[in-house]
Amino acid sequence: MKEKTLFLPGPTPVPPQVLRAMSAPLIGHRNKNFSALFERVQEGLRYVFQTENEVITYPAAGTGAMEAAIVNLLSPGDRILVAVMGAFGERFVDIATAFGAEVETIEVQWGQAPDPEIIAERLRADKNGRIKAVFVTHNETSTGVTLDLKGVAAAVASHPALLVVDAVSSLGGIELRMDEWEIDVVVTGSQKALMLPPGLSFCAVGPKAWEAVEKARMPKFYWDFRSYRKSAQRGQTPYTPAVSLWFGLAEALEMIQNEGLEAIQQRHNVMGRMTRAGAKALGLKLLAAEDVASDTVTAVVAPEGIAPSDIRRIMMERYGMELAGGQKQLKDTVFRIGHLGYVTPPDVLTCLAALECTLAELDFPVELGAAVQAARQEFI
Amino acid sequence: MKEKTLFLPGPTPVPPQVLRAMSAPLIGHRNKNFSALFERVQEGLRYVFQTENEVITYPAAGTGAMEAAIVNLLSPGDRILVAVMGAFGERFVDIATAFGAEVETIEVQWGQAPDPEIIAERLRADKNGRIKAVFVTHNETSTGVTLDLKGVAAAVASHPALLVVDAVSSLGGIELRMDEWEIDVVVTGSQKALMLPPGLSFCAVGPKAWEAVEKARMPKFYWDFRSYRKSAQRGQTPYTPAVSLWFGLAEALEMIQNEGLEAIQQRHNVMGRMTRAGAKALGLKLLAAEDVASDTVTAVVAPEGIAPSDIRRIMMERYGMELAGGQKQLKDTVFRIGHLGYVTPPDVLTCLAALECTLAELDFPVELGAAVQAARQEFI
Repeated sequence: MKEKTLFLPGPTPVPPQVLRAMSAPLIGHRNKNFSALFERVQEGLRYVFQTENEVITYPAAGTGAMEAAIVNLLSPGDRILVAVMGAFGERFVDIATAFGAEVETIEVQWGQAPDPEIIAERLRADKNGRIKAVFVTHNETSTGVTLDLKGVAAAVASHPALLVVDAVSSLGGIELRMDEWEIDVVVTGSQKALMLPPGLSFCAVGPKAWEAVEKARMPKFYWDFRSYRKSAQRGQTPYTPAVSLWFGLAEALEMIQNEGLEAIQQRHNVMGRMTRAGAKALGLKLLAAEDVASDTVTAVVAPEGIAPSDIRRIMMERYGMELAGGQKQLKDTVFRIGHLGYVTPPDVLTCLAALECTLAELDFPVELGAAVQAARQEFI
Repeated sequence: MKEKTLFLPGPTPVPPQVLRAMSAPLIGHRNKNFSALFERVQEGLRYVFQTENEVITYPAAGTGAMEAAIVNLLSPGDRILVAVMGAFGERFVDIATAFGAEVETIEVQWGQAPDPEIIAERLRADKNGRIKAVFVTHNETSTGVTLDLKGVAAAVASHPALLVVDAVSSLGGIELRMDEWEIDVVVTGSQKALMLPPGLSFCAVGPKAWEAVEKARMPKFYWDFRSYRKSAQRGQTPYTPAVSLWFGLAEALEMIQNEGLEAIQQRHNVMGRMTRAGAKALGLKLLAAEDVASDTVTAVVAPEGIAPSDIRRIMMERYGMELAGGQKQLKDTVFRIGHLGYVTPPDVLTCLAALECTLAELDFPVELGAAVQAARQEFI
């Protein structure tokens, strides 16, 4: 049978040419061929992160790179501020707490985003400059909410704190200008808008962050930014890199460079609007308000009396499309549609058509065609 | 041009069917299809580790799993004993020191292995049972030396200390019976005898180790064994697994199960003997004595007046075969031939034939055919 089409917020579909690149015979990671690949990848990553900084590539899941950002910048007892708008904001809190940071949080209801002014206020109140770093989630995968990152960056700029951004489900698909917005560390993963399988994660590290690294005393070895910087000078990594994924990464970065970041972000914006318009046309509620709604993932509230797991099951078994469930407290209330990476507006139309049929099958009163029609208006 | 043939102690050649398996379309990691893959992989891993224990799979390099073993078992200030016989023994020391362990070492000259009796003696002297764990390298990739692991395990058995084994370049290729020998944690990586690309690493965790996990206070999040055990109960991993590498892993484990561990280890033993006999027939010295020489990697001392980098360059550029250099203090004295994983005795013959020609080209007096002839004696 045909494979399922992934409408997940990760893993996302991987282009055939990327999969093909990954199946090349292995090469040694301590020779010139690998160094050439390293330079090519580094250049592509700098483009995607919109930075001149070093980008570190770990063989690890995104959570690994989140941990790396924490242990490389902080010492036990350091105070940090984390803006929590869902499961991944909570993850920053959990990791930092495990390593002995003092964590202050700004929490909003899941489905909302904190106003940059609230962060600015909290930092103004920190007269002694005790807050060493502010951690935010650019795009909260669990709720489909995007933060006003440019606004937050401006708010943090007037305080000595570092700004660390989890851009796992945004980078590539949603505008993020690391250097222009003066962000100190940006974290992402391979299996989202970068169109790769999972297994690689990244930390882009700015000059102010490198200064903090020298003073940070949280214990670390595998994640130590300094080892990666040292090896990068000769186009290598300190520990064996996931070579096959690097082959795919080089190919995916080339595709991104060819399409162009602006065009890619425009495509994601269209897909986000289509998904929301389609869902609303079916009478479904969205978890996020329109002004903070994400261009890469949409959390849809399941109608009263219908379990999100039933919607997902029919979408999967009958229509061959895989949607994500809700995380943590949203488990029984929402399902999520990922529309990022190697996905196009026509794919979104297909997904919405199947969603209409699925709801009809579950005896939810839908006007067949309504979602497709509404989505088409956003695609014109 | 044809790709280089890898005679590296990692990455090793990857079978075409494994590369092919890796290029399947991605699947979601929170559904039944992944859980089925998880169970299949877990069963194959248990066979390779010769254990009934849980085997944890990390998206990470081998060094990550080494760090995981340390931070999950120990608290800051805990005393450990590390047997150091090369670069990877030193790595255990470096990681444990970074996390605040008190590290005692048993050091031998590079190219030798510690006698189990020396470890037994040191443990007998530890009357107050202060040593919490013994860390050893089963097969030291940097020197081509194999430890008498069964002997070491017996030596540790009479002391309460845990036994942690780095089996990165041995597991699969060299006998290791985790349960029968009562080893508490075994660490390995994907890119050696498991015939996969790099990017996955593993910790098999025994019951005594799980008890230690409950008391261990070194800070951790990503590596926390307990999160992996909890997710394993529903056939999942706590953070996004490197799905494509898992596809390859399932295929590689099936190949290993089909060939059979005993046959595989016999094949590696033959290749080790062939390589050593061939090198010696050319008048080359080996770093390791025959009684501790490794079946998976051989460190050959470059002849007086010939740089190992010249040998490697000609092998690479003219014969299309990639050998490894020496690590750390061995950088200018040895080159290393990896003969593990998807490699056969005829491959070793080819490598030795090319080595003969390379040495002749460098004006080292060789009798052409001598290495092949000597190796053939071990292959009969």
